Amino acid sequence: MSTTTWNRHHILSLADFTPIEYDTVLKAAASFREVLSRRTKKVPALQGQVVANLFFESSTRTRSSFELAAKRLSADTLNFTSATSSMTKGETILDTAKTYLAMGCDIMVIRHKEAGVPSAIAAELDRLGERVSVLNAGDGQHEHPSQGLLDLFTICTLIDPIEPRLELLKDKKIAIVGDILHSRVARSNIWSLTASGAEVHLAAPPTLLPKWFADFVNDEEIKEIDQIPNRKLFVHWHLEPALRDADFVMTLRLQKERMTANLLPSLREYHQLFGITRSQLKHCKPNVKILHPGPVNRGVEISSDLMDDPEFSLIQTQVTSGVAVRMALLYLIGSGKAVG
Amino acid sequence: MSTTTWNRHHILSLADFTPIEYDTVLKAAASFREVLSRRTKKVPALQGQVVANLFFESSTRTRSSFELAAKRLSADTLNFTSATSSMTKGETILDTAKTYLAMGCDIMVIRHKEAGVPSAIAAELDRLGERVSVLNAGDGQHEHPSQGLLDLFTICTLIDPIEPRLELLKDKKIAIVGDILHSRVARSNIWSLTASGAEVHLAAPPTLLPKWFADFVNDEEIKEIDQIPNRKLFVHWHLEPALRDADFVMTLRLQKERMTANLLPSLREYHQLFGITRSQLKHCKPNVKILHPGPVNRGVEISSDLMDDPEFSLIQTQVTSGVAVRMALLYLIGSGKAVG
Amino acid sequence: MSTTTWNRHHILSLADFTPIEYDTVLKAAASFREVLSRRTKKVPALQGQVVANLFFESSTRTRSSFELAAKRLSADTLNFTSATSSMTKGETILDTAKTYLAMGCDIMVIRHKEAGVPSAIAAELDRLGERVSVLNAGDGQHEHPSQGLLDLFTICTLIDPIEPRLELLKDKKIAIVGDILHSRVARSNIWSLTASGAEVHLAAPPTLLPKWFADFVNDEEIKEIDQIPNRKLFVHWHLEPALRDADFVMTLRLQKERMTANLLPSLREYHQLFGITRSQLKHCKPNVKILHPGPVNRGVEISSDLMDDPEFSLIQTQVTSGVAVRMALLYLIGSGKAVG
Repeated sequence: MSTTTWNRHHILSLADFTPIEYDTVLKAAASFREVLSRRTKKVPALQGQVVANLFFESSTRTRSSFELAAKRLSADTLNFTSATSSMTKGETILDTAKTYLAMGCDIMVIRHKEAGVPSAIAAELDRLGERVSVLNAGDGQHEHPSQGLLDLFTICTLIDPIEPRLELLKDKKIAIVGDILHSRVARSNIWSLTASGAEVHLAAPPTLLPKWFADFVNDEEIKEIDQIPNRKLFVHWHLEPALRDADFVMTLRLQKERMTANLLPSLREYHQLFGITRSQLKHCKPNVKILHPGPVNRGVEISSDLMDDPEFSLIQTQVTSGVAVRMALLYLIGSGKAVG
Repeated sequence: MSTTTWNRHHILSLADFTPIEYDTVLKAAASFREVLSRRTKKVPALQGQVVANLFFESSTRTRSSFELAAKRLSADTLNFTSATSSMTKGETILDTAKTYLAMGCDIMVIRHKEAGVPSAIAAELDRLGERVSVLNAGDGQHEHPSQGLLDLFTICTLIDPIEPRLELLKDKKIAIVGDILHSRVARSNIWSLTASGAEVHLAAPPTLLPKWFADFVNDEEIKEIDQIPNRKLFVHWHLEPALRDADFVMTLRLQKERMTANLLPSLREYHQLFGITRSQLKHCKPNVKILHPGPVNRGVEISSDLMDDPEFSLIQTQVTSGVAVRMALLYLIGSGKAVG
Repeated sequence: MSTTTWNRHHILSLADFTPIEYDTVLKAAASFREVLSRRTKKVPALQGQVVANLFFESSTRTRSSFELAAKRLSADTLNFTSATSSMTKGETILDTAKTYLAMGCDIMVIRHKEAGVPSAIAAELDRLGERVSVLNAGDGQHEHPSQGLLDLFTICTLIDPIEPRLELLKDKKIAIVGDILHSRVARSNIWSLTASGAEVHLAAPPTLLPKWFADFVNDEEIKEIDQIPNRKLFVHWHLEPALRDADFVMTLRLQKERMTANLLPSLREYHQLFGITRSQLKHCKPNVKILHPGPVNRGVEISSDLMDDPEFSLIQTQVTSGVAVRMALLYLIGSGKAVG
């Protein structure tokens, strides 16, 4: 697997990912997905390296996915979760990261409830001249790049399982439905999917849309967003126009806390207006597929039977893609380091 | 080690275990116990496979035993405990299991406080046509098959360390003492020990016995239980008749919550009536041995000095047996999968 | 690496460490530090052995350091923390340790909030004739020997990176500043540093000094402590005389709970009187270095900018030394066991 095109040391955001970088990740992930179908699912690529999962915000699902990806590359792993950390002892987050740096970690996978924490740690490590890489595993409402990349991989491999690549999505219509305002998953996906040339249609109640979209929202009319030049992004206050002839529908997890903040009247009304059901699917292309980053609130973002229907749901495939894509990311930044 | 006789894909209950299956587990465990006595205690049997410990009910002891067994077979392990899970996020248990399935786990070791959860997950995996195995590590008050098998192995190896086998227990008298009603350990042991041809004598206060035993209970008289054909099971409301000439005494952990539920007057009275002490042991055979699944409430189920007396106590041996038996179970279901 | 001079089975305290033992640890740690600078940072020394981290008191930092050290020696690791343990089920600490013994652990790394717990467990294991080693990872206010040794290694390697050895510290002046009374780190360091022939000067407010120092304390005068024959230990109620011409300054973590116990007026006053700042450093030798066991309360024990100044701060080096020293300790006790 050639990594000659890879120069990125940290993976913090998809905002400045280039088409070549996307394709490099997709190609590497396809190789690793093939490894995962073998009986012995391990490769020695990162033997002797240490991947530290620093989860200042807990997430068993994402942490397990990274841990498994690291182990399948033969890396050693260290898990840190804030519950058992010295956070309560008054140490700063940066001090914690520097402690793991000093122990000799090679890659830090960092999740934090505040946007910008992984970037701040990466900047400090660079300032110190350290070679340790940072991989953002979700920071506040900012980004979740490995999720954006695994969603991209899931969609592209559906179209071409052998050679998934960005150009496959050109002119596809993809709807992203739900709590766009608070979703780091939406943010990363908007970057990757619009970079592919796909038409991305957001559908959400106005209270769950970012303020900077407000001028462009019109329930009847669809407008291109100027802030993202050459990228096709549309905003809707209702579900139907977003779903019309869609190839893919991506629903977002609804944090139930949003109800108490008066951003939504009730889960039931939300499901009626923005929940994905079989009757809603009639607006989409016949072979439409549904994605969800999980964990799903069954009967809220999506009807329970639809979630379990392999004809439409890609939710399980996303999880499998997650391990392959995270192997690819760890491999690309880990091998890069080995060369230098 | 031949596994030609092994066809079981999941290990959920001992209710339908055949004598050949018991003997296959005992033989495999004996081989692995020999491995554990070497300086390098690892074998490459499950290299590249992933064992996920999904503990929806926490248990460091059992989780560590399974984790160590998996590591000694060279498998990779993932630990999930509900405290740091997305259970709180509204995902169903089945969704969690399917997430680990999609990540590519080969064996799921599942503990849950509700009876039937591991079986329900196994049924769903089978329905989906998946090859992942489920190993029940304790479900509510239902079963704890690996505990039943390690107790069986502990007793059989005491009689014949080289070739432990089911028939060695024929006509031995084994007393199971304590909270039969709530004990999944008792339930699994009743299946395995009665299958061996041993006479199994239960001793418990009536409030801690299952209701379906009520018709057969008589403090003076001992009756065979009809529900279990050809199996020798007896019920007593007092300790002494159960201990009389017993070869083995298995005491059960007493959940202290039972007191608050008014099922027992006091720990002290329980110890006087059903606690195993040196003076109570006089009723047993001279070389009687005592088992307890742990953790022990010292001075409640068993007197503290007796628990630590290697002449009588098999408690430490049970823990050591646990690793060997769990290696055997993971090996048998893991290797079976490799063939297919 | 020769270990012919190593006969110690457990590492519980530095009180009786011999100069030869100190030098053996320093030499082994120097070898492992070299391993850590390679791309593949693993050696097969403890392959197939199991290191159990039994942390009855949680500490992500120390646990991660031991876990990484064990993994780099190719040992398997098991983590136990009391939060998910059966401590709440009424099992004694000794029972927990014996359970891990019975599972086949080779080395137990034990931390507990009560002094003497690791020693009590080691004594019981010895009484049982078991070959399992215990490594004290911090017990109450008693000792933290691996911290004392990593501090020693950090200082010695600064003087001679190739051949760190105890005699290098002869006649160096080392100040230990802060909460001596409650600090197991101070206690272990007093043993190791006075053994080297260094002059050790303690500086603390009288409320944070052990009572047995009371007779010797005089704010103006410096006295040798009789209880430690041939060791040079001095006590001060003020910072300045301890810092005067010091080669190294070791500050101790201040537990904020001490304030509520009325042992200190305020964090601010503590920082003014005993905090290490640039202006305080003027009393020391020009090339003075500062150590702190971490995690640091920035602006309390040490000014924030000084902590981050690589010209003075050895704090990150200590963390790196920690992994090398813990590899050395696990290797020395683990290999010793292999021979016997």
